[in-house]
Amino acid sequence: MDRKAICDKILESKQAKKASWESLARATGMAEVYVASCVYGENSMSEEVAGKLCAALDLGADVKQALVGFPMKGQSLGQLVPTDPLVYRFYEIMQVYGAALKEVIQEKFGDGIMSAIDFKLDVTKEANPKGDCVVVTMNGKFLPYVKW
Amino acid sequence: MDRKAICDKILESKQAKKASWESLARATGMAEVYVASCVYGENSMSEEVAGKLCAALDLGADVKQALVGFPMKGQSLGQLVPTDPLVYRFYEIMQVYGAALKEVIQEKFGDGIMSAIDFKLDVTKEANPKGDCVVVTMNGKFLPYVKW
Amino acid sequence: MDRKAICDKILESKQAKKASWESLARATGMAEVYVASCVYGENSMSEEVAGKLCAALDLGADVKQALVGFPMKGQSLGQLVPTDPLVYRFYEIMQVYGAALKEVIQEKFGDGIMSAIDFKLDVTKEANPKGDCVVVTMNGKFLPYVKW
Amino acid sequence: MDRKAICDKILESKQAKKASWESLARATGMAEVYVASCVYGENSMSEEVAGKLCAALDLGADVKQALVGFPMKGQSLGQLVPTDPLVYRFYEIMQVYGAALKEVIQEKFGDGIMSAIDFKLDVTKEANPKGDCVVVTMNGKFLPYVKW
Amino acid sequence: MDRKAICDKILESKQAKKASWESLARATGMAEVYVASCVYGENSMSEEVAGKLCAALDLGADVKQALVGFPMKGQSLGQLVPTDPLVYRFYEIMQVYGAALKEVIQEKFGDGIMSAIDFKLDVTKEANPKGDCVVVTMNGKFLPYVKW
Amino acid sequence: MDRKAICDKILESKQAKKASWESLARATGMAEVYVASCVYGENSMSEEVAGKLCAALDLGADVKQALVGFPMKGQSLGQLVPTDPLVYRFYEIMQVYGAALKEVIQEKFGDGIMSAIDFKLDVTKEANPKGDCVVVTMNGKFLPYVKW
Amino acid sequence: MDRKAICDKILESKQAKKASWESLARATGMAEVYVASCVYGENSMSEEVAGKLCAALDLGADVKQALVGFPMKGQSLGQLVPTDPLVYRFYEIMQVYGAALKEVIQEKFGDGIMSAIDFKLDVTKEANPKGDCVVVTMNGKFLPYVKW
Amino acid sequence: MDRKAICDKILESKQAKKASWESLARATGMAEVYVASCVYGENSMSEEVAGKLCAALDLGADVKQALVGFPMKGQSLGQLVPTDPLVYRFYEIMQVYGAALKEVIQEKFGDGIMSAIDFKLDVTKEANPKGDCVVVTMNGKFLPYVKW
Amino acid sequence: MDRKAICDKILESKQAKKASWESLARATGMAEVYVASCVYGENSMSEEVAGKLCAALDLGADVKQALVGFPMKGQSLGQLVPTDPLVYRFYEIMQVYGAALKEVIQEKFGDGIMSAIDFKLDVTKEANPKGDCVVVTMNGKFLPYVKW
Amino acid sequence: MDRKAICDKILESKQAKKASWESLARATGMAEVYVASCVYGENSMSEEVAGKLCAALDLGADVKQALVGFPMKGQSLGQLVPTDPLVYRFYEIMQVYGAALKEVIQEKFGDGIMSAIDFKLDVTKEANPKGDCVVVTMNGKFLPYVKW
Repeated sequence: MDRKAICDKILESKQAKKASWESLARATGMAEVYVASCVYGENSMSEEVAGKLCAALDLGADVKQALVGFPMKGQSLGQLVPTDPLVYRFYEIMQVYGAALKEVIQEKFGDGIMSAIDFKLDVTKEANPKGDCVVVTMNGKFLPYVKW
Repeated sequence: MDRKAICDKILESKQAKKASWESLARATGMAEVYVASCVYGENSMSEEVAGKLCAALDLGADVKQALVGFPMKGQSLGQLVPTDPLVYRFYEIMQVYGAALKEVIQEKFGDGIMSAIDFKLDVTKEANPKGDCVVVTMNGKFLPYVKW
Repeated sequence: MDRKAICDKILESKQAKKASWESLARATGMAEVYVASCVYGENSMSEEVAGKLCAALDLGADVKQALVGFPMKGQSLGQLVPTDPLVYRFYEIMQVYGAALKEVIQEKFGDGIMSAIDFKLDVTKEANPKGDCVVVTMNGKFLPYVKW
Repeated sequence: MDRKAICDKILESKQAKKASWESLARATGMAEVYVASCVYGENSMSEEVAGKLCAALDLGADVKQALVGFPMKGQSLGQLVPTDPLVYRFYEIMQVYGAALKEVIQEKFGDGIMSAIDFKLDVTKEANPKGDCVVVTMNGKFLPYVKW
Repeated sequence: MDRKAICDKILESKQAKKASWESLARATGMAEVYVASCVYGENSMSEEVAGKLCAALDLGADVKQALVGFPMKGQSLGQLVPTDPLVYRFYEIMQVYGAALKEVIQEKFGDGIMSAIDFKLDVTKEANPKGDCVVVTMNGKFLPYVKW
Repeated sequence: MDRKAICDKILESKQAKKASWESLARATGMAEVYVASCVYGENSMSEEVAGKLCAALDLGADVKQALVGFPMKGQSLGQLVPTDPLVYRFYEIMQVYGAALKEVIQEKFGDGIMSAIDFKLDVTKEANPKGDCVVVTMNGKFLPYVKW
Repeated sequence: MDRKAICDKILESKQAKKASWESLARATGMAEVYVASCVYGENSMSEEVAGKLCAALDLGADVKQALVGFPMKGQSLGQLVPTDPLVYRFYEIMQVYGAALKEVIQEKFGDGIMSAIDFKLDVTKEANPKGDCVVVTMNGKFLPYVKW
Repeated sequence: MDRKAICDKILESKQAKKASWESLARATGMAEVYVASCVYGENSMSEEVAGKLCAALDLGADVKQALVGFPMKGQSLGQLVPTDPLVYRFYEIMQVYGAALKEVIQEKFGDGIMSAIDFKLDVTKEANPKGDCVVVTMNGKFLPYVKW
Repeated sequence: MDRKAICDKILESKQAKKASWESLARATGMAEVYVASCVYGENSMSEEVAGKLCAALDLGADVKQALVGFPMKGQSLGQLVPTDPLVYRFYEIMQVYGAALKEVIQEKFGDGIMSAIDFKLDVTKEANPKGDCVVVTMNGKFLPYVKW
Repeated sequence: MDRKAICDKILESKQAKKASWESLARATGMAEVYVASCVYGENSMSEEVAGKLCAALDLGADVKQALVGFPMKGQSLGQLVPTDPLVYRFYEIMQVYGAALKEVIQEKFGDGIMSAIDFKLDVTKEANPKGDCVVVTMNGKFLPYVKW
């Protein structure tokens, strides 16, 4: 089974069992975005965590094995510029605010980057009578350029 | 003067006066990322705020006028896929976590998107003995799809 | 079944039953373009509306479930620049009139955008002895840029 | 002077004279979007209309001549996929609703297209207490495919 | 059956019956290029003409139905820049002579285009002792830009 | 002077002298499209013909020399897919009718191509009460593939 | 069977029978590169030659028929810029030496091209104690631009 | 002066002095294609050879210095897929015959490539009463893949 | 079986037998990266080495035959710009350090390249209390440009 | 002065003073590749190191200031796929060996990447009677994916 089929199998089981990312996060002790990224083959789980996920969704050894593997990442969108409106907004933020982010991060930290590997990502809801807000928090280690 | 030249002029003045994004944020009463995005021609300022920025940096009417205009946005990178490592990490986050973000946002909010217009962006430093972390917070209004 | 197969199944049933977008709009109480966009996996329906559509076309629970899901959007064309002449004309309108639309919308509303999410789209026929005209009406909420 | 320089010159004069697209539409007897598209070198004016525009903005013979010429069109954006958020939304509408538009237009008219040449484009504001709406109306002649 | 499979089925039957585009043009009363374009899913036939084609090639109702449908066009090449030498030459002609065609057509007709919808295309052989020539004739209605 | 500047200089002189492609065709004894393609740097003229063109437009030795040179061709559009509507229609014709042209040309001639080098291109107007038509005639030598 | 499957079938049979391009060239009386290009669906064979190839490899009527057909060419690589190192070197030669080839060919022949249709291609080995050399010889008819 | 300006300067001097690639080859003792590739900044000359070229064309130390430098190569076309018909034919040959070349070269030499660095390129004219032929000979060292 | 299926079969067997690249390197007497590259169809093995690999993994003659074949290379990523973060870093190194590598290599060696064919690649771990380091060593023969 | 002009100024001074990357490395106490990458605007120097470089090359405060700034990186090539043969080989290595590198690095280190920021790059010459070899050593910290 290729990685896309594994992902589909997990999503079907999640739907059939009326599980949510929230309930899977609780079952595994991990964050919602992290669990979802593993399901899509963009991240890997420890043996133990994969075991809990498979237990929660009644999935077998083949799925567990795929979840602990080290997948070829960045393939779940399959597009240079995404066309889904929700995903595109993150591309737009990069195009519109990329230069500003670079200026402010480097003023605060020096020459370097925010790691996307030593990194966590969180989504929460901010209640607001005029319309709730999506709050996305990225937390990545600052990596200064080595000068050698 | 084209918009790129306006931007260069402001950056030169900022450097000459040893101003920082932090000091410009204080001078204008706006956020650092917001101020930087206006300087790069990716956002517009009110007359009053543009006036404060120009006062802080000794810049004239032409710059102020450009800052209150409604620029053609998304042009400061000039690349479909950015090559600067700091900016690229945001592209990578979208490629690796885009599908997971879609899953989790839609589970919490329903079918819709996080607005990138009714939207704020913040960068802070999280001190950490093993290496400080960059925290980027995105806060955008949730917009549900109209069904008509 | 993947989303493309769901779409094909609905289109075949629509053809077999000699249904039209107009009759499906009446059966569901929704607009023609909206119904068609849901069939193509570009929009989602409420449980109730999906139920009516499936009843009208004798389709089962799998189709209904797909119609209420939140699909990965923007994938029905599968091309950066569309080659179908009818669809291409909308690309051409954007290339030829995009800058003018930006000028006029921003003069009337300020710095911001027409939402494509809080948005409706309508097609009507304007009778004309020299040749009927297609009238496409887009109605989207104006979203002003937040200044923060 | 190349076409971009002509455009900049008109926009500068429009700003200096505090003219608006609305006032230029009145001065020329043409629609706002049409006037703006001519300024951006995407459409051409008759001698008479170009004369009125140049009179309203105190512009000379070189500008007038450029306005009555037949420009190389579709060059004011200069991008296959636009990065400006306002313009991008029209690209997104094409990606998300293109297949639905094709279905509905062809059901109403048969095999053919909405002309983007024998075509008018209009922008109006719809007042709404929850937030005003942008209404974009496209009106193009239906062209049936010739069968030969 | 998808549209590509329909096309393959017709081409196989054409080969098995040793039919030619010329004989199919005679059988249907339509032009050769037109018939071939319908077979490739790039154009649609009237019920009557599709019936004649299916009769000539002993094909059934599913093929006939596909031939009268309104296909998603421009998909038979599947390449932005074609690699087949015969097809590429038409791309080359556009690149090399596009600007000249624009100059001459607009001098003769004014600001507008040659329609590719209200349009016919014909191929003939011009005998020549030094080598026969291919003559391709395009005949499309001139559409002047509306000024509104 | 680069080739683009030569082209602009000729076009300006043509406009100043109110010359037309038709008059330049008469002055040089060559076809309109051919003359225009040479002006745009897409074809070369003999010494004699270039001399006549320069005489007709009062242009000097540098222009004449450029016209007899062998230019780098295919650069006057500068786009993989053209955005100008008139030019785009030729791209569309290739996308929509390319496969059909291949079928019909090869049925009439065998395996080979229509040359775009040993090739002529002509534009004429066909008067029609319902709207005049543009007739574009391409005439290229058939080149059969060598089998070796 | 599609053209790729035909190719795979021939290559398997070639391997099973331990045939070489050299032996197939002898069996058919044609050149090695020509035979290989036909197998890959990039060229067509006469009835007689295809018969000899099929006899040599024990292949049936379907393969023979495919070999005499006029295939859609330029599809065996399936990449704009090839990634296989051997094939890429030919792309590199074009990028590095293209301008020089144009200068030298046009100095020797005038304005025109080397035909890639009325064309032969040959590969030989040049023995050399420091390392053998690959000699690729291209021989194409010069086609002068017609001036009309 | 950038490399493009150096190239233009040499080409102008070559034209003014009515030099040919052949005469420059004689003056420098190098091959025509090699000399032309150095002029276009795609190859470098030894001090001695560059001195001879500059002497032949009355060019100064800045040109000589540029000719002995190690240029950033592959930039004289500036296009992924070339639009000039003469240069494009080499791209077409790669697309149409690339797979066949790989088959035949590897049958004769084993797994490896023809070097494009340890490589010579030659153009000659083959006289032919039916039309002269261009003969392009590529001679590159075979490099076998190291197995380690 | 196509090359991708061969690769999957080997990887499955490697996992089932709990083999590692290190153990396969030992079994075959070749380097780890070399063995992995052959498995992915990017390199070829001698008969003898392929035999050892197949013996170690209990694989049959079809796999062995594929491993000694000369594959179409550069196809295991299938992307112009890779999206997997580990692979992308090598792209980033090329973008950020490519010009510097060119400067330093050419200063040390003259005009030429590091061969990627006569080439070895090695990965080792450098223990470090602050975090282990990945050491990638590339060793390729210098190839000077031939001057002819 | 833009960053490209700063780079050109340093390279000119380096040439005029007959400095080498090796001598600049000695003068600054940094590595050759590091110094070259700073000159090309791909890395930044400390105040002290930039001072030494400017002293060695007699360059002023504007250059020094540019060298300590945090440049927009990845822009010195300006191409998605590089055309210079020396630089391209690094792209080829990524395409051909990328999957193998991923396999071997992850076997040795687990799920993660080699940092391109906490990273050093070195070039040395390995003498060899059959032809010297280029040895490129990359040394980057291993960054494991955080699981959160």
